[in-house]
Amino acid sequence: MKKIKGGVTAAKGFEAAAAAAGIKYTGRTDMALIYSKVPCTAAGTFTTNVVKAAPVKWDQQVIAGGGKVQAVVVNSGIANACTGEEGFGYCRDTAEAAAKALEISAAGVLIGSTGVIGKQLPVDKLTAGIIKLAKKKNDSLENGTEAAKAIMTTDTCEKELAVTVEIGGKTVTVGGMAKGSGMIHPNMCTMLAFITTDAVISREALQRALSEDVADTYNMISVDGDTSTNDTVVVLANGLADNAEIIYGSGEYQKFAEALHVINEYLAKKIAGDGEGATALFEAKAVNCKSKEQAKLLAKSIVCSNLTKAAIAGHDANWGRILCAMGYSGAQFDPEKVDLFFESKAGRIQIIENGTAVDYSEKEATKILSGSAVTAVADVKMGDVSAAAWGCDLTHGYIDINADYRS
Amino acid sequence: MKKIKGGVTAAKGFEAAAAAAGIKYTGRTDMALIYSKVPCTAAGTFTTNVVKAAPVKWDQQVIAGGGKVQAVVVNSGIANACTGEEGFGYCRDTAEAAAKALEISAAGVLIGSTGVIGKQLPVDKLTAGIIKLAKKKNDSLENGTEAAKAIMTTDTCEKELAVTVEIGGKTVTVGGMAKGSGMIHPNMCTMLAFITTDAVISREALQRALSEDVADTYNMISVDGDTSTNDTVVVLANGLADNAEIIYGSGEYQKFAEALHVINEYLAKKIAGDGEGATALFEAKAVNCKSKEQAKLLAKSIVCSNLTKAAIAGHDANWGRILCAMGYSGAQFDPEKVDLFFESKAGRIQIIENGTAVDYSEKEATKILSGSAVTAVADVKMGDVSAAAWGCDLTHGYIDINADYRS
Repeated sequence: MKKIKGGVTAAKGFEAAAAAAGIKYTGRTDMALIYSKVPCTAAGTFTTNVVKAAPVKWDQQVIAGGGKVQAVVVNSGIANACTGEEGFGYCRDTAEAAAKALEISAAGVLIGSTGVIGKQLPVDKLTAGIIKLAKKKNDSLENGTEAAKAIMTTDTCEKELAVTVEIGGKTVTVGGMAKGSGMIHPNMCTMLAFITTDAVISREALQRALSEDVADTYNMISVDGDTSTNDTVVVLANGLADNAEIIYGSGEYQKFAEALHVINEYLAKKIAGDGEGATALFEAKAVNCKSKEQAKLLAKSIVCSNLTKAAIAGHDANWGRILCAMGYSGAQFDPEKVDLFFESKAGRIQIIENGTAVDYSEKEATKILSGSAVTAVADVKMGDVSAAAWGCDLTHGYIDINADYRS
Repeated sequence: MKKIKGGVTAAKGFEAAAAAAGIKYTGRTDMALIYSKVPCTAAGTFTTNVVKAAPVKWDQQVIAGGGKVQAVVVNSGIANACTGEEGFGYCRDTAEAAAKALEISAAGVLIGSTGVIGKQLPVDKLTAGIIKLAKKKNDSLENGTEAAKAIMTTDTCEKELAVTVEIGGKTVTVGGMAKGSGMIHPNMCTMLAFITTDAVISREALQRALSEDVADTYNMISVDGDTSTNDTVVVLANGLADNAEIIYGSGEYQKFAEALHVINEYLAKKIAGDGEGATALFEAKAVNCKSKEQAKLLAKSIVCSNLTKAAIAGHDANWGRILCAMGYSGAQFDPEKVDLFFESKAGRIQIIENGTAVDYSEKEATKILSGSAVTAVADVKMGDVSAAAWGCDLTHGYIDINADYRS
């Protein structure tokens, strides 16, 4: 496997574009298009929130129907959630406008939306935006990056990655882009992420590769504990790599799943580290656990703890909060056997051994905790299974953004 | 039932005292004593966190043993959590020092601790504090208030209440005090709360009255989602009201349970409204639900949502975040049937009807949301059961306190 430049346009036959449609923002792009020259096999995972945005309902219908997908249209101004029948109607309008502009079937258009909840879309601006997107689309890496920028809301940087992997003598490319920032606590999947590949792969294999990996990547991140109404991860496979079809469970499937995992984990960590107001990516690893479930409960509970996140913001080795968060995670363990370490680029330090503090240097700990990516490693000494979860620190910036911004 | 002045010393035969022992703070009291002239029937509920503080383990042993209790010693400097065998030993030392100073049995001494996790108690200061407490104790209401102040950490005000109720021709008094502020997300019970009563009541009835009511009061509050290692609610009944013994399930039991509920709900709401950095008490009511479980899931999910709490801080009627929080609560409902209202002393306003926004005045909504106590009422139109939960807004103050304060 090899990391290469680019994102959603890295794989053969995929084009992208960004446009400023003025849906909410002015002076920046707020619509993106992903287009494939040929129809794609598609897989998706979506929010488990009972309150589902209209585009989530639309995409679920398209994916469940099993038809081919050829385009994704995204806007980052209005979430189109809690908008009733009228909002769902705008999904149909969007798909039809895109179908007309791109000369494809409306049934093959997926829709992504993110932004303020409860407002109706200005359909005229949206339609005008789609016409711009159709004209500007091309397969350059630059256009992929522009699309990744256009889907941002309170994100501070675009998030994209691409890799190649040899499958059956052919070079298969997988690339993706995502956005996150706030209302990030995915449950079965995350905020918007779009992945493209030129692999030839069965629909079943594509969906299983995505569903299984989402559990270890997007579902292991949290910014604020709020599971969004719009969480969507979609993978499009257009088959232009010309490899023999990848079937679930084969050796070639494993290779593809690993490539997909690299993309998903990278995008998930980028979303966590760029959470609203974040100054650091905060990773929690639970190691030497008895089961995957236990390890995931422990790691996720640590990165979700407001108190722990505030301590990370203050570069404070407040390990009591971490042990406390492990204690209410729902996982069973012996607190008096836990070892805890902090790690960052600045080094590694042990803070507790068998549940009580060792004689560590607070100065050294603060230095390590001042990194832009900080890891807490909790060893429960019960087995050999590990899991990681990702979040960010809780800062004044989060309050600034969310006490004043109608997002 | 009648509200009266006072707290833990309101009931007959209870004395209290506060002392400055210098355990963590200087220039303020940090130890409190509750003492009963005669031994008490005792009931308690404690944190479900796997990581339990030493005093929680101590109190659980005392309560489970069924013996009589005559004193409670509390310190608010050090939590005595994650302190291993040594920490548990300090509980024994504390009980023995109190037993000696008060001339009672060490087996009848309960212990409460709150403060920093992981530090060992300075046992000499603790013992000196106990001697001061034993000398200063008396049954004045002022001493009750002083005790309520001494157990505070980042709390901004003391929390106490007392009521009287006529039971079998006798006046029974129930009074209590509590502290909260941060690491507040009780699961089976809350931070420190101590309730005293002169009722004659069976041990079974006392424990059931407490356990059943805790589920609707302390367990329905949250400040930051972090379930503490030290949560403790204890009720002491010394029998000096001389009523006929209250037995579980009787009419007299109902009267006692109602009086206890008034104390518990008051203290729970005070803890929520005085959460770290809070500028407002935030109440969520889920009404017309199908079941109590559904109503509680919905109400609790709303008050726990960081995004909603930040919106309350900004006086922003950001109803999308509330509907989103209801959607990921785990409760089933039809989002397109939900009505939502905001209430405060400044008035009441409807924001959404059947899942979408009505044409409300943002100015009026902001006025209502600027109150020091704000209520969101969500009507799901599925039945006739309601539940309430209490939290607070999420402000810069919370970040100030927790990014810099080793609590």
